Amino acid sequence: MSHTAVLFGKEFREKYFTRLDENVVPVNHGSYGLTPTPIHEKFLEAIDRDNSFTDRYMRFELTRDYIELLKALASFVNTDYRNLALVDNATTAVNTVLRSYPFLKGDKIVVISTGYESCVNVVKFLHKRQGIEIVPIDIQYPIDDDDIIAKYRDTFQKHRPKMALFDTVTSLPGVRFPFERLLHLCREFQVLSLVDGAHSVGLIDIDLDSLQPDFYTSNLHKWLYVPRGCAVLYITPKLQSKVHTMPISHSYMDEAQEAQLDEDAIRHRLIDKFDFLGSKTYAQISCIIPAIDFRKSIGGEKAIHDYCYNLCRKVAEMVTQDIWPGTKVLENSTQTLVTSMVNIEVPIAKFAADVGGKNLDITNAKEVRRCIDAIQYKMATEDKIYLQLFVHGHFYCRFSCQIYNHLDEYAVSCKLLEKAFHHYFKTQSLRPLQ
Amino acid sequence: MSHTAVLFGKEFREKYFTRLDENVVPVNHGSYGLTPTPIHEKFLEAIDRDNSFTDRYMRFELTRDYIELLKALASFVNTDYRNLALVDNATTAVNTVLRSYPFLKGDKIVVISTGYESCVNVVKFLHKRQGIEIVPIDIQYPIDDDDIIAKYRDTFQKHRPKMALFDTVTSLPGVRFPFERLLHLCREFQVLSLVDGAHSVGLIDIDLDSLQPDFYTSNLHKWLYVPRGCAVLYITPKLQSKVHTMPISHSYMDEAQEAQLDEDAIRHRLIDKFDFLGSKTYAQISCIIPAIDFRKSIGGEKAIHDYCYNLCRKVAEMVTQDIWPGTKVLENSTQTLVTSMVNIEVPIAKFAADVGGKNLDITNAKEVRRCIDAIQYKMATEDKIYLQLFVHGHFYCRFSCQIYNHLDEYAVSCKLLEKAFHHYFKTQSLRPLQ
Repeated sequence: MSHTAVLFGKEFREKYFTRLDENVVPVNHGSYGLTPTPIHEKFLEAIDRDNSFTDRYMRFELTRDYIELLKALASFVNTDYRNLALVDNATTAVNTVLRSYPFLKGDKIVVISTGYESCVNVVKFLHKRQGIEIVPIDIQYPIDDDDIIAKYRDTFQKHRPKMALFDTVTSLPGVRFPFERLLHLCREFQVLSLVDGAHSVGLIDIDLDSLQPDFYTSNLHKWLYVPRGCAVLYITPKLQSKVHTMPISHSYMDEAQEAQLDEDAIRHRLIDKFDFLGSKTYAQISCIIPAIDFRKSIGGEKAIHDYCYNLCRKVAEMVTQDIWPGTKVLENSTQTLVTSMVNIEVPIAKFAADVGGKNLDITNAKEVRRCIDAIQYKMATEDKIYLQLFVHGHFYCRFSCQIYNHLDEYAVSCKLLEKAFHHYFKTQSLRPLQ
Repeated sequence: MSHTAVLFGKEFREKYFTRLDENVVPVNHGSYGLTPTPIHEKFLEAIDRDNSFTDRYMRFELTRDYIELLKALASFVNTDYRNLALVDNATTAVNTVLRSYPFLKGDKIVVISTGYESCVNVVKFLHKRQGIEIVPIDIQYPIDDDDIIAKYRDTFQKHRPKMALFDTVTSLPGVRFPFERLLHLCREFQVLSLVDGAHSVGLIDIDLDSLQPDFYTSNLHKWLYVPRGCAVLYITPKLQSKVHTMPISHSYMDEAQEAQLDEDAIRHRLIDKFDFLGSKTYAQISCIIPAIDFRKSIGGEKAIHDYCYNLCRKVAEMVTQDIWPGTKVLENSTQTLVTSMVNIEVPIAKFAADVGGKNLDITNAKEVRRCIDAIQYKMATEDKIYLQLFVHGHFYCRFSCQIYNHLDEYAVSCKLLEKAFHHYFKTQSLRPLQ
């Protein structure tokens, strides 16, 4: 089917991503994803099926559908379907584990400075409510994977933590984290692993039975093209009884009650717990099989990943050489950081000098927040583009590359960002709507 | 606008509830609700607006919309909009409060035997995880409100609980609970009140500033006609800092951090905490104002409530006098139980005798579950009808009455149920799909 792969880019978008406003420059797939129209149509069909006779759908069809699609998804990520559950998003999955696992006061959880704010906040909440101790690891890029692993080894030796929460690919910066090697290290030190793979399924290869995490989640609405909100939660069999749904629902049993069940029921318990979590729409989960099928039909995972990764590398080359010469891509010595997202330095000092403005003090978090808010608001409302901007040692823009993108869009993006910065440095009086 | 009220019933359904399979007999509104087509169209418009440029929608439009619709909703339930938050459903709201409130080990929570299973399960979870003590109150209908209040008074005096969790209208049986009087009693005993109003907004009048609960939730997708899942959570100002979102998200601050904020920020904090809880669809919340407006346009709350309540009373009279003579409606001496749901005894002994079958032992929970599952599955798949059946001293069917229902449907429902029971008692071998 690889014949279609050549079509990725502009024409592909016009054919398959028709729901997007055609004037939008969509170079930020990483934040919310984007669903191809044929998959969205399955979403609408599921809503119609539900609404035509909701009692029957909820009571007799949902679980049957749920098991069927879990099997397809399990095959996609290589594990037994009875190790999987579906939840709204990766943040919910991380909360589900952390807010029900029976920690003891004083248990230590390792988090990283570049971790997703919402997920790190759950650990802060546990610190306040249950006396969990937070062990932070500071990550400053560019850093080599070996150095990250060394930091973890030191930390594990020193603190003997109960659990480590880390990413597959962090959000800001949007870089690959050496999660495969860390999973080995966790097993070596008997540290429970909780992998925030918000950016993983559809972005990078995931083979759960090889990886052997204790807990793992991935959004399916980002890189797999399922409508929001849809994420998978994997729990290794021996820990499944220790995690309860969020919300706690009809299916709740405590660990002692679960242990009374017969072997088959225990093995099926994760499904029985998570298949219905209260009245809401479940239409998006009906899009998992269509999404997997769509991806196969357009060339498969390798073709998709290759196009996106190669486009990222081309964007990086174009921007750092031709558009903003002298800037750098965020990358380490072994070139492991770039996926379908690439972080490129923004030459804000030059932009300020261009218009005789005062440069931004990137050590002043409040000033940085104000600047980014203003730029993002202006660009979103006037230019129909949204760029992820952040400071990590330098001022960066994170670009996402997808099968509907083409190189010219990133040149346009840079020019619009430059224009917005010129305006900002000239006025420094813009305020966002909120 | 009351001129349109006369149209409630069959023609009204054909005009406004076009998404329902026309062969379905929809007499179970109480379980999942049903959204009129004009409101559903607003739901689809919101999805389109989101998908056309998601970054802009999520970052710059969602909070603005959220505040606007909270104000409309606050006016509808009479409180300050800054006391409200939106979540998926009442179960999630109850979980949100219980799973973040800073209970101390040994704190007692009062629950009722007729409470919603998912919500009572949260308290069981807290018992296991945090050492909360559960204080159950047994409710056997028919019981008068005075007797319920007396049970609570005794319990409060004896146990001095921290909190009481109770319903506005319970689910099974579907009966009104004396929550207004209980709220007075909670204040008298300084017991925190957590009101599970899953069935309330749109079903009965709710005036929060008069009621003065500590915590209250109502689904908006049941009786207000908003698409699933949408519920409101009310928190009295002085307790807002003690409740955190579920999932814990970007907005998290602990109580000490919140206390550092200025007065306006503290007053606005519930909105800042709950306006974005992770990537998922928020399209249903865009239907709150359209739902309120739709209800006004068809005659308003009183016209809606009157039609539904009066239809319930007619159904009760018809069934207990003409269809199943000798059966009783579940009602107490002061006639406070019936709302837009009515619970009517099902003469299963007669049905068994009709076909020479062995009657169901209603004290055998497993046998009852098997029977109800079989009947519900057969009726849903063959007759396109779903009836809520349950045992509470006797065997009951809960009927819901809505503006799209008319009396004949309940006669049809009874006949179909009778047919299903005859078949069940003849064979007793049916098994549901799951």
